[in-house]
Amino acid sequence: MRELELIAHLEGLFAPANARVIRGLGDDAAVVRADGYAVTSVDTMVDGIHFRSEMLSAEEIGHRALAAALSDLAAMGATAGEAYLSLGVPPGIAPEQVLALATGAHKLATRHGVTIAGGDVTRAPALSVSFTVVGWARDPGLLVGRDGAQPGDVVAVTGTLGAAGAGLALLEGRAAKEPLGDLADSLRERYARPQPRLDEGRSLAQAGARGMIDISDGLATDAAHIARRSGVRLELSLASLPVAAGVREVTEQLGVDPRSFAATAGEDYELCVCLPAVAARQLQNVLPANATLTLIGAVVGGATGAVFTDADRELSGFEHSF
Amino acid sequence: MRELELIAHLEGLFAPANARVIRGLGDDAAVVRADGYAVTSVDTMVDGIHFRSEMLSAEEIGHRALAAALSDLAAMGATAGEAYLSLGVPPGIAPEQVLALATGAHKLATRHGVTIAGGDVTRAPALSVSFTVVGWARDPGLLVGRDGAQPGDVVAVTGTLGAAGAGLALLEGRAAKEPLGDLADSLRERYARPQPRLDEGRSLAQAGARGMIDISDGLATDAAHIARRSGVRLELSLASLPVAAGVREVTEQLGVDPRSFAATAGEDYELCVCLPAVAARQLQNVLPANATLTLIGAVVGGATGAVFTDADRELSGFEHSF
Repeated sequence: MRELELIAHLEGLFAPANARVIRGLGDDAAVVRADGYAVTSVDTMVDGIHFRSEMLSAEEIGHRALAAALSDLAAMGATAGEAYLSLGVPPGIAPEQVLALATGAHKLATRHGVTIAGGDVTRAPALSVSFTVVGWARDPGLLVGRDGAQPGDVVAVTGTLGAAGAGLALLEGRAAKEPLGDLADSLRERYARPQPRLDEGRSLAQAGARGMIDISDGLATDAAHIARRSGVRLELSLASLPVAAGVREVTEQLGVDPRSFAATAGEDYELCVCLPAVAARQLQNVLPANATLTLIGAVVGGATGAVFTDADRELSGFEHSF
Repeated sequence: MRELELIAHLEGLFAPANARVIRGLGDDAAVVRADGYAVTSVDTMVDGIHFRSEMLSAEEIGHRALAAALSDLAAMGATAGEAYLSLGVPPGIAPEQVLALATGAHKLATRHGVTIAGGDVTRAPALSVSFTVVGWARDPGLLVGRDGAQPGDVVAVTGTLGAAGAGLALLEGRAAKEPLGDLADSLRERYARPQPRLDEGRSLAQAGARGMIDISDGLATDAAHIARRSGVRLELSLASLPVAAGVREVTEQLGVDPRSFAATAGEDYELCVCLPAVAARQLQNVLPANATLTLIGAVVGGATGAVFTDADRELSGFEHSF
């Protein structure tokens, strides 16, 4: 496949399926009918820094980069609309691989009604996948920032934690798969194909969420972001964390506590949310059918920060970008 | 300066100056009040491929990357609104350099009423600057694609051509500055700090432009894009090209024809436009005061492509990305 053929393939793959997209790839810029307020985020993943291309398929790399970007829209409670891909391709990557990467992103996009409406492809010294994602909101009052948590709110997380970190430990060979059976594959999948919690984010926003963030750097670090931006203190409990199935078997091999691991391993792309206690009690009714929400703590006044009151040491996640 | 200090500096620098931007940096996503139709483009520049960091200041690198992205909005006739920066920073680049790069972009943004409303900074093997820019249009019918040129239209370009290419030849030492006097600095400036033709693009769109593109890869190549997308033939004349002052002195040293050079050297970021002859005759009245427009050819039927009828060989520009 030559470069021009690749462009033609990408234009075919990304052909707008949504009437809102008036012009997609192939012009100087995409044209999209707007709706109230645009919610925009950028997320870039570089080979060797945010992932290792020898551990993932090209489809997974494309899926994962778009999932991480869409997760930011989920954390705002926005409805995802379009994505724009900037792809840096090193020498030695075949056009077929580029197309597979694009296909992985496209499948995820389609599942969430998102159109990949533009972008560029350039040469680069390492594979680099950057997505700018745009969501839309009619009522900006229903968007949830990091800065609105208030003392008295409860703190909750969607889904389960630690799975992506455990999957990465398996992929990197730091833990053996054998004790895990079929769980090994599902942990790998949680790392390789995280699911952005767009439906959950929108439901939580409508239910009255006041502070929300997606868990990319680990709960301990990301909860601290809410605390700092909101000027509050988040008191969390390790014992209450929803530790994903299989994490215990991995952390036993790593010689670490599974709950501390779940609190600090990043890239689960679940949501951490602060909301009034009364709203939280009615939540299971408004969440999508297969979604779960676990109460893990409370917002209080005092010195800002996120602390685990039952931890024997201070926990913090990792930050892989600045 | 530590990384967290850098983030704080960037948040201060990029603080929204426009009431349309409801949330800027510091949250999961930016929130911007929309206006009709969003016009979005992505442009990425990588050190060693699209520029060489040892030849430009950090401020110039930031300016140039944003200018190239905004130039795509100019070519649509859109009003520029926001920009989102994804910055890849290799080891050894000081935070002060990152801040200087951001400052260069910020100054250009401010001149055009653009807010840098979000982005991310990651480690990367080479300096990489990617801007996603968003413009707004109330009436999508006033946006100009590459696909609307019609036989009978005239073809014109804004400004002058060849200056950026000549500036690059000086920067790379392929030509000597001495014969040029003060012109050497202005040619360098045209390469290092191109000016996106946003006002001109909007005026041309309002005046009835039917096909438009910005000249990033060279007029010969970019005119061919209009021809292919519109299904027409562009017959252009080398003799009519507005060759920038100083280009002749550089091309004499390079041993090439100045007009062919102006037709193929890229990165001038002027606009090439196709519009009805009657509209073109009244154009000088609607263009911004200091803008110029030069007629360089006509749109005809027949085999698609862009040809210079007075050239002694086929000309094509360079393409630095696929």
